[in-house]
Amino acid sequence: MDELDRTIHEPARLRILTVLSGVDEADFNFLLNTLGLTKGNLSSHIDRLEKAGYVNVVKSFNGRIPHTDFSITEAGAEALEKYWEELDAIRGMKGMRDE
Amino acid sequence: MDELDRTIHEPARLRILTVLSGVDEADFNFLLNTLGLTKGNLSSHIDRLEKAGYVNVVKSFNGRIPHTDFSITEAGAEALEKYWEELDAIRGMKGMRDE
Repeated sequence: MDELDRTIHEPARLRILTVLSGVDEADFNFLLNTLGLTKGNLSSHIDRLEKAGYVNVVKSFNGRIPHTDFSITEAGAEALEKYWEELDAIRGMKGMRDE
Repeated sequence: MDELDRTIHEPARLRILTVLSGVDEADFNFLLNTLGLTKGNLSSHIDRLEKAGYVNVVKSFNGRIPHTDFSITEAGAEALEKYWEELDAIRGMKGMRDE
């Protein structure tokens, strides 16, 4: 039986990755407001996702003001899709019978 | 933001509870074969689910041979339904935009 990807299974990281999967990129404040996490929590979860290769940090400038955005990587998108497929498979276990 | 029920979020317990949600009752061997867990793991997860009030232990006799079945409780069924609803809500966060 496949094991669920524990990097993604953590609810906060699942939320972060799911939000990022629907946008080109998002900045820290958008994620903070959307997810209702503390700054420290959000930082550490993004860090973990980045280390897993699931999230890219995109640095840019608005004029002279530095701006940081986050985007989901291809590996992240694939892992997330696989995760939801596995959850759907678990959900389908409701139909198993002992015969 | 609602937190996911950690008793259910553990993948093995999610599988056990989901299988039980589709049957009147199931015995230990059926769960063992279906879920591919070790006996010790299955026992401890069932124990945790029982302590949470999500699973009932049903003892009976086939003639003189004692037999143990497990069934999901009403609280377990409600918690599982709520869990899947919350996961669906997370899945829907894919559509969130920063505008």
